[in-house]
Amino acid sequence: MIQKLIKNIRKTNTPIVVGLDPMLSYIPEQIQKAAFAEYGETLEGAAEAVWQYNKKIVDAVHDLIPAVKPQIAMYEQFGVPGLTVFKRTVDYCKEKGLVVIGDVKRGDIGSTSAAYATAHLGQVSVGSQKLTPFGEDFATVNPYLGTDGIKPFLDVCREEKKGIFILVKTSNPSSGEFQDRRIAGSSEASILSNTDKSDLAGAAGKPLYEMVGEKVAEWADTCMGDTYSYVGAVVGATYPEMGKVLRRVMPKSFILVPGYGAQGGKAEDLVHYFNEDGLGAIVNSSRGIIAAYKQEKYASYGAEHFAEASRAAVMDMIRDINHALEQRG
Amino acid sequence: MIQKLIKNIRKTNTPIVVGLDPMLSYIPEQIQKAAFAEYGETLEGAAEAVWQYNKKIVDAVHDLIPAVKPQIAMYEQFGVPGLTVFKRTVDYCKEKGLVVIGDVKRGDIGSTSAAYATAHLGQVSVGSQKLTPFGEDFATVNPYLGTDGIKPFLDVCREEKKGIFILVKTSNPSSGEFQDRRIAGSSEASILSNTDKSDLAGAAGKPLYEMVGEKVAEWADTCMGDTYSYVGAVVGATYPEMGKVLRRVMPKSFILVPGYGAQGGKAEDLVHYFNEDGLGAIVNSSRGIIAAYKQEKYASYGAEHFAEASRAAVMDMIRDINHALEQRG
Repeated sequence: MIQKLIKNIRKTNTPIVVGLDPMLSYIPEQIQKAAFAEYGETLEGAAEAVWQYNKKIVDAVHDLIPAVKPQIAMYEQFGVPGLTVFKRTVDYCKEKGLVVIGDVKRGDIGSTSAAYATAHLGQVSVGSQKLTPFGEDFATVNPYLGTDGIKPFLDVCREEKKGIFILVKTSNPSSGEFQDRRIAGSSEASILSNTDKSDLAGAAGKPLYEMVGEKVAEWADTCMGDTYSYVGAVVGATYPEMGKVLRRVMPKSFILVPGYGAQGGKAEDLVHYFNEDGLGAIVNSSRGIIAAYKQEKYASYGAEHFAEASRAAVMDMIRDINHALEQRG
Repeated sequence: MIQKLIKNIRKTNTPIVVGLDPMLSYIPEQIQKAAFAEYGETLEGAAEAVWQYNKKIVDAVHDLIPAVKPQIAMYEQFGVPGLTVFKRTVDYCKEKGLVVIGDVKRGDIGSTSAAYATAHLGQVSVGSQKLTPFGEDFATVNPYLGTDGIKPFLDVCREEKKGIFILVKTSNPSSGEFQDRRIAGSSEASILSNTDKSDLAGAAGKPLYEMVGEKVAEWADTCMGDTYSYVGAVVGATYPEMGKVLRRVMPKSFILVPGYGAQGGKAEDLVHYFNEDGLGAIVNSSRGIIAAYKQEKYASYGAEHFAEASRAAVMDMIRDINHALEQRG
């Protein structure tokens, strides 16, 4: 699937991903009204509104972008009907040729992680059948439980040629609370490192996110596609200096970069998340695209033409990111 | 809800929780056959088998125990039909008077964590309605993203009188990979501590799990029930020495203890997870209870009487845990 991601990036000539993270408050009144008229003010009604909204946005932008990233929490908040629409969205985007990154941030002990890996990337055996529960192409994974929480995902990635992005340094303001903590004695740590980072590790030791990054590099080595690994990492756009270091720590991993736009990350800060080959990163924008019509810049489209506003916002984002990459030379 | 948990523990006179983590391989052939006959070898068929299995176990043990802990991954692996049965299981257990701990291990950046908190503990607004997506009483939460990933859960806990258990030290073999790393300079860390642990923090600093435990204690202080907080912690039975330390670090938090039985944790190791008042911990067993009929000890029940085997296993577990607590004096 990493091959398909690279192919799609080359085809569209842009390394961006649109986050399909619908809040009801983003969805134009008329779509909500129509859905409630059919299903009532129920979870089904809300889910239907989400589906109609998603579908129009995907129809409007799918030819411009390589991938989408539905955030499952936004569907889970509408219970089972919400998750039905999550699945419908995954299927629809795949039909349109898009790579689908399920932003699920799952992670647990071994046997439970295996169930999550099956749920999102694999197939489950039922009697003599092999069935696909959700069937995303990639999933995001939380590393707090260590290798035996990650390994079942690696197994499914190899078997199904799917991929994962492991949380390394997240984009939120308090991500440093644990992730930035310096690990005592880690300058002599026995963990395998692919790059010479002795200059980066002061006497106080490396930060935790870097240690997680080193593990990602190890795991990535065991799941290689042609030039990049099936195993990528999440590194927030809001911490560009750390992104620069982590790029070197995980040379074969794609970096999924949230935090551009609405959260404050700027295109010029993101160039160091890419490798020399122009690949190696994919930049996400959610609210900035799907709720573009609510911004002053795109307000002239009006709520009725929200999907065209999203298309305009995608084109502006492509220009912005590609311009920064060209400037880098 | 922490009040109800304590009330249920007092009523049943036992601090245990049964993990409803069904694998198809645990479910007796005849239940699978009946479900497949009705729904085919489909996700619906698998989910129906899980539901029939769960229902019989809950019917057999509900009067003996204060709480259940369905592991959502085991339902998610059967897609939308699986999650429908997760919800049905939650509802059924609540009807039976049980406290339901949704083992979901969610956690994300602020606005996304808010959606997860709504999904599992809260209510979602749809038009003029307030609806309940999944409606567990407690949820487990991953702390890797720091305070702004936790805060939305605290808000919902206060509003709905629900609770969370935050992963501090997990029961799996590789949990130490990141969780046990010693944090440089943390003996002088500015993080508020309620207990004098200067003797525990060597020159190399405190381990990460202890630092997370200290944050749990802080968060717990902001969400108090009568004597215990709505905010608890997960500490594996497989690391009793760490459990002893963490008991002191988080005096007002209930500790949810996985890893008893099948994973190797022993009753006598668990007494230090409890406070002097005999409360403060709740010990989980999943496979050891729900698949008891597969153990030699309970094999005489046979697959047909699997639920009675589960009841016998619960009674043995109660004896084992209560005996260890009495020995402690």
